[in-house]
Amino acid sequence: MSNAFLIQRLCIVGVGLIGGSLALALKAAAACGEIVGAGRNEAHLRDAVALGVIDRYETDIGLAVHGAEVVVIAVPPSAMEAQLRALPATLAPGAVITDVGSTKVSVLAAAERVWGHVPPWLVPAHPIAGTEKSGVSAAHAELFHHRHVILTPLPHTDPAALTLIRVLWEQTGAKVATMEAPMHDDVFAALSHLPHVLAYALMDSLRAGGASGLAYAGSGLKDTTRIAASNPCMWSDICIANRTALLAHLQRFQATLQQVTQALNDNRGDHLLEIFASGKRLRDELTELNGSAVDA
Amino acid sequence: MSNAFLIQRLCIVGVGLIGGSLALALKAAAACGEIVGAGRNEAHLRDAVALGVIDRYETDIGLAVHGAEVVVIAVPPSAMEAQLRALPATLAPGAVITDVGSTKVSVLAAAERVWGHVPPWLVPAHPIAGTEKSGVSAAHAELFHHRHVILTPLPHTDPAALTLIRVLWEQTGAKVATMEAPMHDDVFAALSHLPHVLAYALMDSLRAGGASGLAYAGSGLKDTTRIAASNPCMWSDICIANRTALLAHLQRFQATLQQVTQALNDNRGDHLLEIFASGKRLRDELTELNGSAVDA
Repeated sequence: MSNAFLIQRLCIVGVGLIGGSLALALKAAAACGEIVGAGRNEAHLRDAVALGVIDRYETDIGLAVHGAEVVVIAVPPSAMEAQLRALPATLAPGAVITDVGSTKVSVLAAAERVWGHVPPWLVPAHPIAGTEKSGVSAAHAELFHHRHVILTPLPHTDPAALTLIRVLWEQTGAKVATMEAPMHDDVFAALSHLPHVLAYALMDSLRAGGASGLAYAGSGLKDTTRIAASNPCMWSDICIANRTALLAHLQRFQATLQQVTQALNDNRGDHLLEIFASGKRLRDELTELNGSAVDA
Repeated sequence: MSNAFLIQRLCIVGVGLIGGSLALALKAAAACGEIVGAGRNEAHLRDAVALGVIDRYETDIGLAVHGAEVVVIAVPPSAMEAQLRALPATLAPGAVITDVGSTKVSVLAAAERVWGHVPPWLVPAHPIAGTEKSGVSAAHAELFHHRHVILTPLPHTDPAALTLIRVLWEQTGAKVATMEAPMHDDVFAALSHLPHVLAYALMDSLRAGGASGLAYAGSGLKDTTRIAASNPCMWSDICIANRTALLAHLQRFQATLQQVTQALNDNRGDHLLEIFASGKRLRDELTELNGSAVDA
């Protein structure tokens, strides 16, 4: 019987949208013998059991990880180090630790602070999936279908641990790629963290301006700011964890916006058109990537 | 027979997404006896006839408006004045002129330049609808269902002309409101023109940064920049036409972005969270307005 499972016992620390969806996807794939949830909020964990997301839970992380071959830490970046610190004493020999965070250099740095080095059985991972909703009630088994998951191993990462985490994510229907952690953080500062900053900043700026006529807003504003409905604690946390890379991209964006301001001040529609047309060209490339089902 | 129609003959100058969708919606409502298209590009007009959007077309605007009780000018802001200039000599007595432009002060200013004053039979209008697509092939009869249409009459606008344009838009399933033109331009600088600027600027800035890893972009970037796939000529035109109001909102947005930069530089997650949480509060209000089907 036990041979039928990829993982006999999996522990998920932080059973929210991502952790909960991973649990549901792995259950749907019959990949795990047992899924144990862990976290601080017992009411949320009870909900997760009631929703059939996890099999049982422990509020003590030491008890939760007992006998687990894989521990998935699905907490915000700022909580990562504390969770890693809580692990070593009770971890099963050979256990693999992975995470689901939006920033990866910060995870490696946290591991170095905890153990003096990054252990070979730590496999940092980032599923490119989510919605503006959060919490286990928003979790669903198809969240990672056709989505990318980026793994950022180091040269000394254990190949068997890396393969196990790759196969685990493939069970959810995701497409797995690897990237070096600094490259990952630079790419997602531009493609994800900056867009979140702009969406939040736009809504905050509209509020500061009185937000008159909000009821007349068209679909443009709604789509542009959908991600500003996301959990602001999680996103300020992510932005701080990746602030160096984010600041570089934010600075370039501000320079572009200054060009727009200049064009408007100078009444130069031709200069404005150059910027807009250049932006549209890359947006059309993004649409084409979609069309080819890279991220359906 | 003729009494059955709200308008016996309607002329639409510029049969693109908006003009074409208006024609289709009015046909679906059996509101017009005949819809005549006008424009410079004969191939597009032929397409519009073939698609059943208009009944016939004229490339000469003088011929096109002949006998029309209502003329809808659906051209970009920069083409507005020239179209108004082409009208007077051939216009039927009592004919009502309206437009569909995203900026309204510029329309009144164009009319003043053409006639020395804004005629009482000119009713400026702005349907808050559209997609990132353009052209008559994207037109459809339901585009204005449950959408807002803003009319910006002046105190001396002819009440009968105003009522006719209001009823015309109600036939398309839209909800009609009135607003003063400067207020309209301020509201839509914030709710529509600024989001377009940000979407184009973000894609242009990503391109300038090398756009590495674009294939890994998640749904956040896609939604945030959907409107950057819109026609850049039309949008640079709109932004220039409304540049004073837009510049004011852009300046406030840049100040907000500077606060974000400062918070990141200072490593102050609490300051970042304040901005993000404030943005989310207004975004949640927008979601609630949606929920109540204000803009389904």
